[in-house]
Amino acid sequence: MITLHDLAGADPDLRFSPYCWRTKFALAHKGLPVETVPWRFTDVDAIAFSGQGRVPVIQDNGKVVSDSWAIAEYLEDTANGPSLFGGSGGRAHARFINAWTDSVMVPGIATLIVRDLLDVVAEKDKPYFRQSREARFGRTLEEVQAGREQRVEAFRMALTPVRLALRAAPWLGGAEPSYADHIVAGTLMWARCTSAFPVIDPEGPIAAWLGRVLDLYGRLGRAAKTV
Amino acid sequence: MITLHDLAGADPDLRFSPYCWRTKFALAHKGLPVETVPWRFTDVDAIAFSGQGRVPVIQDNGKVVSDSWAIAEYLEDTANGPSLFGGSGGRAHARFINAWTDSVMVPGIATLIVRDLLDVVAEKDKPYFRQSREARFGRTLEEVQAGREQRVEAFRMALTPVRLALRAAPWLGGAEPSYADHIVAGTLMWARCTSAFPVIDPEGPIAAWLGRVLDLYGRLGRAAKTV
Repeated sequence: MITLHDLAGADPDLRFSPYCWRTKFALAHKGLPVETVPWRFTDVDAIAFSGQGRVPVIQDNGKVVSDSWAIAEYLEDTANGPSLFGGSGGRAHARFINAWTDSVMVPGIATLIVRDLLDVVAEKDKPYFRQSREARFGRTLEEVQAGREQRVEAFRMALTPVRLALRAAPWLGGAEPSYADHIVAGTLMWARCTSAFPVIDPEGPIAAWLGRVLDLYGRLGRAAKTV
Repeated sequence: MITLHDLAGADPDLRFSPYCWRTKFALAHKGLPVETVPWRFTDVDAIAFSGQGRVPVIQDNGKVVSDSWAIAEYLEDTANGPSLFGGSGGRAHARFINAWTDSVMVPGIATLIVRDLLDVVAEKDKPYFRQSREARFGRTLEEVQAGREQRVEAFRMALTPVRLALRAAPWLGGAEPSYADHIVAGTLMWARCTSAFPVIDPEGPIAAWLGRVLDLYGRLGRAAKTV
């Protein structure tokens, strides 16, 4: 069975990494059972075997793969089950969607929920979390998150490509879900699990699509613990 | 032979529509010869046969297709030659890239070159062009374009997903060019043909990639007339 080191909060059942969610959806899409190991930001030694310091990390019969994109490619190339990418063009174009998500959605959501995240991370992680994120933003977590009610509309507008793509098809993958759905929905799971703040319009088409993703794979996303 | 109604300026050889360029690259990718018909914004009657008022419009043995995305799908489904999408996932994911380009790149470039565009459109199109674009922006063309030297950096930052995707592969399509390359490069042709203003960093990786696209298909893009 594949093992996944999966970011957890103070509550070991609270699993909120946007990158680990991409991997969990991809594993489920391939029909692969997984044993997850709760991991905290400061558990550096626990994943030293991977040669780097971030999750997701998977172990598959002695093979170790880190980085959510590399894991998706590894699963596509080694596992049976439905395709994650839908062919070579799908894989290349999914890279663009991954890059867009990492450069637009991840920083955008961070500015809306980063102070909420501090409340859920493990006690031992809190100093690391505050210091590393405040260094990244150059401001306190409280300052970064301030005014989110006024800023959320701009973030929602930045999701226009998702809305437009979903006008044409039920999934970002087209007629069937693909890893593109996992990338974007996995990133939204980050906010869903950790914050009551509505980063997406609860009445809009992205929320409707996210609801469909939550119900995939035996309601994997729906069953996730939230604060 | 396929016929394409192609937006032209006062100079009939100046062809600058970002949507027509997507179609011209796609036709060339499929190895299909095309006869282009210069068209101006106010030539509404000339494409009335298509049931709508915008270019690109292609005619292929009596079959009429308008809208650059619909044309790409039509060519993929009916023509031989290299695939535009690289499979079903590639097609679905290219829709996202098309949506991102239309909602981020097209409006972004418009604010940088819209006054320059007025200088190249046909004399008879100028009143329509000014009125329609000023109504869209709620400001004069001169006001929209003002301060572009200060604003261009933000536009270039918004192209980060393109830069990140090109770190992983030579083309947005991966090992080979795909319609994703045509979408983004076709949109950059709009600025290249009509304005001396450098919307992309001339020394950056996007410029290097665009140079490779310009050299495809017998240097189709490189040969295009510019102001």
